[in-house]
Amino acid sequence: MNHRVPGFLAAGISAGIKSSQQPDLGLIVSQVPAAAAAVFTTNKIKAAPVIVSRERLTKSGNLVRAVLVNSGNANACTGSAGIDHVRTVCHDLAGALNISDSQVLMSSTGIIGVPLPIRLISGSLSRLVGALSPDGINDFAHAIMTTDTFPKVVMRTFKLSGRHISLCGIAKGAGMIMPRMATMLSYIVTDLAITPDVLQVVFCDAVNDSFNSITIDGDTSTNDTALMLANGQAGNAPLKGDSPATDAFRAELGGLLKDLARLILKDAEGATKTVTIMVLRAKTAAEAKDVAYQVANSPLVKTAFFGEDLNWGRIMAAIGKTAYDINPDSIDILINSVKVVENSTATGLKSQAADLLKGNEFTVTIDLQRGSASAEVGTTDLSIEYVKINSAYPT
Amino acid sequence: MNHRVPGFLAAGISAGIKSSQQPDLGLIVSQVPAAAAAVFTTNKIKAAPVIVSRERLTKSGNLVRAVLVNSGNANACTGSAGIDHVRTVCHDLAGALNISDSQVLMSSTGIIGVPLPIRLISGSLSRLVGALSPDGINDFAHAIMTTDTFPKVVMRTFKLSGRHISLCGIAKGAGMIMPRMATMLSYIVTDLAITPDVLQVVFCDAVNDSFNSITIDGDTSTNDTALMLANGQAGNAPLKGDSPATDAFRAELGGLLKDLARLILKDAEGATKTVTIMVLRAKTAAEAKDVAYQVANSPLVKTAFFGEDLNWGRIMAAIGKTAYDINPDSIDILINSVKVVENSTATGLKSQAADLLKGNEFTVTIDLQRGSASAEVGTTDLSIEYVKINSAYPT
Repeated sequence: MNHRVPGFLAAGISAGIKSSQQPDLGLIVSQVPAAAAAVFTTNKIKAAPVIVSRERLTKSGNLVRAVLVNSGNANACTGSAGIDHVRTVCHDLAGALNISDSQVLMSSTGIIGVPLPIRLISGSLSRLVGALSPDGINDFAHAIMTTDTFPKVVMRTFKLSGRHISLCGIAKGAGMIMPRMATMLSYIVTDLAITPDVLQVVFCDAVNDSFNSITIDGDTSTNDTALMLANGQAGNAPLKGDSPATDAFRAELGGLLKDLARLILKDAEGATKTVTIMVLRAKTAAEAKDVAYQVANSPLVKTAFFGEDLNWGRIMAAIGKTAYDINPDSIDILINSVKVVENSTATGLKSQAADLLKGNEFTVTIDLQRGSASAEVGTTDLSIEYVKINSAYPT
Repeated sequence: MNHRVPGFLAAGISAGIKSSQQPDLGLIVSQVPAAAAAVFTTNKIKAAPVIVSRERLTKSGNLVRAVLVNSGNANACTGSAGIDHVRTVCHDLAGALNISDSQVLMSSTGIIGVPLPIRLISGSLSRLVGALSPDGINDFAHAIMTTDTFPKVVMRTFKLSGRHISLCGIAKGAGMIMPRMATMLSYIVTDLAITPDVLQVVFCDAVNDSFNSITIDGDTSTNDTALMLANGQAGNAPLKGDSPATDAFRAELGGLLKDLARLILKDAEGATKTVTIMVLRAKTAAEAKDVAYQVANSPLVKTAFFGEDLNWGRIMAAIGKTAYDINPDSIDILINSVKVVENSTATGLKSQAADLLKGNEFTVTIDLQRGSASAEVGTTDLSIEYVKINSAYPT
């Protein structure tokens, strides 16, 4: 598949940050300043590249030319030296690209608390810039991987206002550089013309319905970053607010991000199943999402999924952990379309639903019978392999 | 050890609720009405015995004569039939003991969503009552076990206002009746004289600092119950408010409940380590407890404990998940007394602390350097055995 987006170049190389000599340094460059939107980790402890990138987006008026990403080192909990390292590396890259420092962003993923090997990175920049190519997105996708078992790239093309638009998303999943830290990174590039303000709104909504609606273990990284660049090379009239064209873009971007989120779940550490938790008829959207996350993050529910055991009592108990004032006697639970619980008691259809849990994917629908709000959260099972991967258990 | 408390009788028998024929029906009786205090699950979905017992405490003015406990069936998500079953069984027991219905409480633990086998239980009541004895507490402790590997009974005697006071606590841990639901139950009996109001205050405080300060998997049961009975047979002047005697009782009860909570952690499913998370110098007690729970419930932290890997980056990331406005650059982390993180960066003492993680018990101290509040939460590691137990993985 063609992963080219007009006006963007990309590259990925090995700089020696990972001792495995796997690719660990990636670069995306827009040939003109691109409107940028970003969502960063909500963790109170933020990695140095997150802190610097946030500042620069403000300073540059959300116009970005280049994004440098390294794997193998998170540059988190590295103090003021870590901040200096980001500035130094980005300054060197800006020089090599002949652009302004403020238009260079950076992300990192890997071990926490270890100084960034800036000599390795700065010493590799000319080779990295030399490798830039319109076909470099796959190399970039490889360079940002940690324990991901496959690179995650999705591509969409669509027509908007008479123009062909290309939209490409790259992500790395919540994999662990043994024995370290999960991080989700994602970069989306498009040749669409759109103002930074509108892009930020549309992008945030799409992130909330995709990356912020999945969970693997309920742990949030210090480095999580989702970044979108739109360089306008498609030549459409720039999207400036609500319009049918903005709605069309919103739908395409929403679909793309959901596809990427689904890939992250599929490649979750040790997971054998992808499970959608759907909460219906909650009073508010916040209530629906809270109930969905209570179930999606419950170790007892997730181990039961792994055991392919239809233990709906655990699902009920997880629902009941919510702080919202749900009605405990009016809850229905369905596995796909089989109702196993009606008004909080067994329907007797458990055996008909049991086989559905043997599949790689199924949906648990929870009907709270209270209102009209709903939410959907993707999760995985909790497997023996997850514990092995994350404890570095000697196998 | 002598587990007698004057004026209390207890028993435990097998009623055939568990297919294993292990003891599954326990009874504690006070020879006179006892002042009662209780803390029930905060889960929005409460089991039938929790609903009925709560009602009865109000109706009886917190005076209780008997507590019936079955294991092997949770009587949760059983609808109005479940409520009727509790009333029927308690009514039969009240008849056998010749006491009022309103002075009989009940607890259950086991599988959710299956009707309580009331014929088995009611048919066993005369045998259970016949087995009542001042030495029956150990039998009772066995009867309430699920996957607990040992019964949990602790006993203290102390002098108060010139009288000898006996204080005995029994608990079952967060074990799983494969493949079902964890529940914590605890019963504390004493011959102290104390008003129900004062008892409730002292008991709630002690529960908050013990049972409500431990976590195994962050899942809360529909059946959790901690119940205290004080029958006044020691003959002391009843404790009615703040006084040196009340303070002395508070200290003894607090210590007893912490001992019981520690036993529950030691017997946690699959756990190989007991870890104390101590948070110091938080701005508020709520902030301290939230940070402690973020760390104590993090699967990434808990798998690292299992792997005996000093992955302080995961601890930092878990701390940062708090919604409280902590200072990300001023956090110290100690393993026992070895400081591995100072002002949020590595001290270089990691290797000196690494061996401490090989022990069965250690303390992780987190100094937030913000205020003067603190909290302590007990947790365990997350092991392969935990996943096996809870997924019914074919071993």
